[in-house]
Amino acid sequence: MTALTACPAELRRLDAEDPLRSLRELFELPQGVIYLDGNSLGPLPRAAPQRVADAVSRQWGQGLIRSWNSAGWFDMPQRLGDKIATLVGADPGEVVATDSTSINLYKVLSAALHGAERDHPGRKILLSERSNFPTDLYIAQSLCAQRGLTLKLIEPEEIDGALNVEVAVLMLTHVNYRTGAMHDMAEVNRKARLAGALTVWDLAHSAGAVPLELKASGADFAVGCGYKFLNGGPGAPAFVWIHPRHSEQLSQPLSGWWSHAAPFAFTPEYQPAKGITRYLCGTQPILSMVALDAGLDTLLAARDLAPAGQPMVALRAKSLALSDCFIQLVEQHCQGLGLRLITPRNHKQRGSEVSWALDVPAAVPSGSSAYAVMQALIARGVIGDFRAGDGDAQPDILRFGITPMYLRFADIWNAVEHLRQVLQGGEWQRPEFARKQAVT
Amino acid sequence: MTALTACPAELRRLDAEDPLRSLRELFELPQGVIYLDGNSLGPLPRAAPQRVADAVSRQWGQGLIRSWNSAGWFDMPQRLGDKIATLVGADPGEVVATDSTSINLYKVLSAALHGAERDHPGRKILLSERSNFPTDLYIAQSLCAQRGLTLKLIEPEEIDGALNVEVAVLMLTHVNYRTGAMHDMAEVNRKARLAGALTVWDLAHSAGAVPLELKASGADFAVGCGYKFLNGGPGAPAFVWIHPRHSEQLSQPLSGWWSHAAPFAFTPEYQPAKGITRYLCGTQPILSMVALDAGLDTLLAARDLAPAGQPMVALRAKSLALSDCFIQLVEQHCQGLGLRLITPRNHKQRGSEVSWALDVPAAVPSGSSAYAVMQALIARGVIGDFRAGDGDAQPDILRFGITPMYLRFADIWNAVEHLRQVLQGGEWQRPEFARKQAVT
Repeated sequence: MTALTACPAELRRLDAEDPLRSLRELFELPQGVIYLDGNSLGPLPRAAPQRVADAVSRQWGQGLIRSWNSAGWFDMPQRLGDKIATLVGADPGEVVATDSTSINLYKVLSAALHGAERDHPGRKILLSERSNFPTDLYIAQSLCAQRGLTLKLIEPEEIDGALNVEVAVLMLTHVNYRTGAMHDMAEVNRKARLAGALTVWDLAHSAGAVPLELKASGADFAVGCGYKFLNGGPGAPAFVWIHPRHSEQLSQPLSGWWSHAAPFAFTPEYQPAKGITRYLCGTQPILSMVALDAGLDTLLAARDLAPAGQPMVALRAKSLALSDCFIQLVEQHCQGLGLRLITPRNHKQRGSEVSWALDVPAAVPSGSSAYAVMQALIARGVIGDFRAGDGDAQPDILRFGITPMYLRFADIWNAVEHLRQVLQGGEWQRPEFARKQAVT
Repeated sequence: MTALTACPAELRRLDAEDPLRSLRELFELPQGVIYLDGNSLGPLPRAAPQRVADAVSRQWGQGLIRSWNSAGWFDMPQRLGDKIATLVGADPGEVVATDSTSINLYKVLSAALHGAERDHPGRKILLSERSNFPTDLYIAQSLCAQRGLTLKLIEPEEIDGALNVEVAVLMLTHVNYRTGAMHDMAEVNRKARLAGALTVWDLAHSAGAVPLELKASGADFAVGCGYKFLNGGPGAPAFVWIHPRHSEQLSQPLSGWWSHAAPFAFTPEYQPAKGITRYLCGTQPILSMVALDAGLDTLLAARDLAPAGQPMVALRAKSLALSDCFIQLVEQHCQGLGLRLITPRNHKQRGSEVSWALDVPAAVPSGSSAYAVMQALIARGVIGDFRAGDGDAQPDILRFGITPMYLRFADIWNAVEHLRQVLQGGEWQRPEFARKQAVT
């Protein structure tokens, strides 16, 4: 590997003066890795191994069944939910950590459709974006089939025009998983409310990544992911939020015993709990929940370093600075190498990731170049990810998560240097980086 | 505490000659504890701390996102499912470990009702037991409301008479969580099939506890729990099995991306996967999954000690011997102290737990005695659990899980000695064991 050009003093100074620089020490990051995939799986918090080990050996091993009470396992969904609430602009008691994002979406989308049917029985459209994360669309398809509704998929710029009196619910992902484009949540909520539609937000790529004011923004329902920017570990439980104006008015169909008003009364009749507890279902995976707790604490630690105790505001400022730096360096140093920015440049329209399409000469097999470039980067220790396009409107992309908790400007510089070398030298065309099999 | 009468030589000899005695070494059991609650939360497998620590520090910490492939995270639901299959009488590829029991029940009950509607559109009854575990009834209530069906609850002895041409689906828990009573699964399946009804079994108190021949028994659908007799840790993922004749014929509504035929093609249209993978939904909690894997391996270890490689047959023989011993000793040593056996004596009608009602003098406050006795036992290190009755047909009970993996005849002797002392001396009436607040 050719040596990288040294990181300029200007960027090194930004790192040295970064008020959040100590947050990096909260993580175990492998030697030689520049991790630009925290939007897919956040890295290991340094506190997590000990906390999980304690949950395994002391709480489970020694405490056994008693730990449901003595170790506070029972109320972990609510306790972790309260931490998440501080990161998403909700109040205590409004969020629970539980189940997976897909399952939580099924719950809130059911509740939202229930609410829409009650208030506007004639509305038969569930509106969403064509490029929404597919699992959201699959869950929506299932509920629409169940309820005789139509799932209408549009482009983001068509939302305003499509919000008419037929729309029961508008379901959006706040930050697009492919492009990193971000909706103006308050503005969309305002328009949806004017149109009489309820809003369901997927915060998978927003929670822990951008400041959120869920409640103030006028949103109705939200779900989000624990294992991306919340650093909760592989497959960490997800979360769910309902505006309190709805939480006791609507029901959700996954009415397991943890959502019961008195689960240990063991009564045969279902009686839903008050508040957000109604959105639980069954017993939660405690060990994964403990790791999520450690992940949440990394974000809360930023609070102490941030002005006015607003961790997400300070993190956001650094995320934008890192992202701008990344875009600028790629455009300068990789000019003419085929990379085309997919993510909006405008700060207000961008989450915390940057994606590039790759336009390569026609001689190169279609659909394999971006994949091979990412493999070559990963082999160099620069971990981002590849997302396949549809060969049509959506190109294949190279996706880079910009996570200000542990990334430095020097990391961005080095990542761009690696990217330049991979593209410039044709390294990515080596057979070992070729896609073995098309993802179909 | 008065000294316990020493365990007789006869029981000590049974322990010394027990061919499964070495299995106890697979577990970390706290000093001074006799654990009779493995039917609620199995104890810590000795291998689990290291395996979970490896998943945290090496797989997550060092491998990061790459571990989805390199550490085999992606196919854990199927890989663990195959291990479970060997314990429940299913074939490889027919079981996945995933989500919670309640959520899996929602999936299979939806599929079963879908199948019944296709084959027998006029049938409007979902039949179950009044004393089924409540979460099963709550999920059933939700689906019945959704589909305009009636949930009919009966006593176990009424099943034959109730299986008529109106019944779409019969949903039962194989071993009753309160009484330990076990259905004859093959016989019930035969009668249900004759009546044209599909069967859905909850194996929460059966999997890892009694031999099961799901497929040979003619069952249609089953779910079960990972954290009881499978020793998978607090809130471990549950499992789901569908007879292959149904698996691709029916759909389930929690159609998240992990149930998609090609999840990483990210296509907007849902296309269900083949086989049991269709019963997944979203991303699974990997750390809890790793602990479950260690729990399953404790059961598979029994295979090497069991004749003809049938771990459940050997475990069952010991479970029945321990349970018989427990019943006999309680009836001898605690005679006249108010305990009344709730669990059937007949081996064919009994799972792997033994429950007792407690009839105390009228002067003692109703609804508090069994609770206080269990608290007094737990204070002595004998951990079982208390389940409240309904003050009517169902009495409060003392419930004891009989888990042959790690229990010895000497443990049973000592547990009965403690029970005798607690009851005989009135120790349970001490204020510290009183129920602070009625569970309502």
